[in-house]
Amino acid sequence: MAESVEPPVGSPAAAVVHALVDRGETFGVVESLTGGLLAATIVDVAGASAVFRGGLVVYATDLKASLAGVPDGLLAERGPVDPDVALALAEGVRQRCGTDWGVATTGVAGPEPQGGKPVGMVFVAVSGPTGAVVRELDLDGDRLAIRTDTVTDALRLLADQIHAAPAG
Amino acid sequence: MAESVEPPVGSPAAAVVHALVDRGETFGVVESLTGGLLAATIVDVAGASAVFRGGLVVYATDLKASLAGVPDGLLAERGPVDPDVALALAEGVRQRCGTDWGVATTGVAGPEPQGGKPVGMVFVAVSGPTGAVVRELDLDGDRLAIRTDTVTDALRLLADQIHAAPAG
Repeated sequence: MAESVEPPVGSPAAAVVHALVDRGETFGVVESLTGGLLAATIVDVAGASAVFRGGLVVYATDLKASLAGVPDGLLAERGPVDPDVALALAEGVRQRCGTDWGVATTGVAGPEPQGGKPVGMVFVAVSGPTGAVVRELDLDGDRLAIRTDTVTDALRLLADQIHAAPAG
Repeated sequence: MAESVEPPVGSPAAAVVHALVDRGETFGVVESLTGGLLAATIVDVAGASAVFRGGLVVYATDLKASLAGVPDGLLAERGPVDPDVALALAEGVRQRCGTDWGVATTGVAGPEPQGGKPVGMVFVAVSGPTGAVVRELDLDGDRLAIRTDTVTDALRLLADQIHAAPAG
């Protein structure tokens, strides 16, 4: 039964876990619209505990400041669905979890637009040893589809950054 | 398509969300073995954002202290799979998320025992306006089954405590 639910070896989560095990590096995640789904996808990978330390679920906007350290002024000016907020989240979770890498998701899962931002507008960000990067996504589908695609794209962004960074 | 993935109205997550909406109260979660699955299950419920503020994923033991405020001495003495650690986690997330209720999970998802505790030993705890309670579970199955059952039992414990507490 475990075999049927274990993510395939080639899944984005497994690829990230295996790459970080090889490098001896760790990561943490901070999630808004995905609400825990990114972390849950990671811990499904056998051996994830060697490299995945944990994370934050900052569903309420003010928790992005109080838990993850996003500046209040930035949140007030831009709202939670913003590339610089995503970057601040990724850096914040990296610091708070004491990890080499931090990954963040923020966006609009729907069904209603949020603060003038359309359903499917999502930002994923990665902060690592050599800097930070953010990617804007324009996703289709229902709430679950938008969340699932966000998880996949966040993991792919992390995999890309790991691949591009010199091993510590 | 949204209809097919939405948890049924009678699901434990939906029951908790609807009960807290009725009472005007909020909650947060802190997860060890469930690794985000509890939070992800909650945000699948339409309208959850009115009452669910967020939470912590404390997969690494030291994050239970640094993020959730569990005393270092308690963790050193008992290890992470312990009823008093579960209670401290629940109270810690309630404080850090500024919620009326806090819910915690800690236990051994397997496949290997952990610190002398058998696979399937799980503690779920709830801290609320009138006190805190912890329940020990003895679960069977693979890692996903143990996680899924933990999520269900944690939500049921919260529902029981909400039902027993006088509305604020």
